[in-house]
Amino acid sequence: MTSGRVFDLGSSTVTEAEIIDFATRYDPQPFHVDPAAAADSIYGGLIASGWHTCAMFMRLMCDGLLSQSSSMGSPGMDEIRWPNPVRPGDTLTGSAEVAEARRSASKPDRGIVRLVSRMHNQHGDPVLTMIGTGFYACRDS
Amino acid sequence: MTSGRVFDLGSSTVTEAEIIDFATRYDPQPFHVDPAAAADSIYGGLIASGWHTCAMFMRLMCDGLLSQSSSMGSPGMDEIRWPNPVRPGDTLTGSAEVAEARRSASKPDRGIVRLVSRMHNQHGDPVLTMIGTGFYACRDS
Repeated sequence: MTSGRVFDLGSSTVTEAEIIDFATRYDPQPFHVDPAAAADSIYGGLIASGWHTCAMFMRLMCDGLLSQSSSMGSPGMDEIRWPNPVRPGDTLTGSAEVAEARRSASKPDRGIVRLVSRMHNQHGDPVLTMIGTGFYACRDS
Repeated sequence: MTSGRVFDLGSSTVTEAEIIDFATRYDPQPFHVDPAAAADSIYGGLIASGWHTCAMFMRLMCDGLLSQSSSMGSPGMDEIRWPNPVRPGDTLTGSAEVAEARRSASKPDRGIVRLVSRMHNQHGDPVLTMIGTGFYACRDS
């Protein structure tokens, strides 16, 4: 993975049922689980949990990049932003840009990659940006 | 919410089935979905997706704090760290400490609260730390 390289991660469409199912388990705030209450909220309708938005991005990341890689997990994420809500029926498209790639000094069998991740909806509005770090096994170790 | 106040958010136990179910949908890496492959990985066994860990914290946050609040959502999170993996059968205990609470200058009907969130397992090992921002309706507006 070379700095500046951008991986297109494809698209996925989310249904109202998926939004409610995720939020019922993990984030049961009214504007995530109750369409009527959501319509009366500042959001004017049901929106996905931000954690669901992250999880949907992760699925694109797995299918579009990690399944062909030697991913060894991640120590964390920085600067997660949800600039616009995700709504039922939205089609979300993801990308990941390599910000930095280097070999670990302490564990030279693995590389450390910083990715700037982005996801937008069918209108081109950004719904997720974040900076994350991942570990990958090096091919030559 | 006063700066320095800590909210105890209670505990929750995660099963292997839940770990596999979440990861099958959102993060199907071998060490999250395949116990045999996970045993051969650097983790030595199945571990929860970091996004599942965040989602489990969010559920504690909803039940322990937000359901009694006037939460209006969040613009994002900073410095998410997964210092130790979450494994099947782990009991996770969460807390949230108020780092800053102020009224919005642009929208004075709402407050902006920065929380330092933490979750640890039954051994006392930290499994999640993060800094997040939330919006709340002000009682006196």
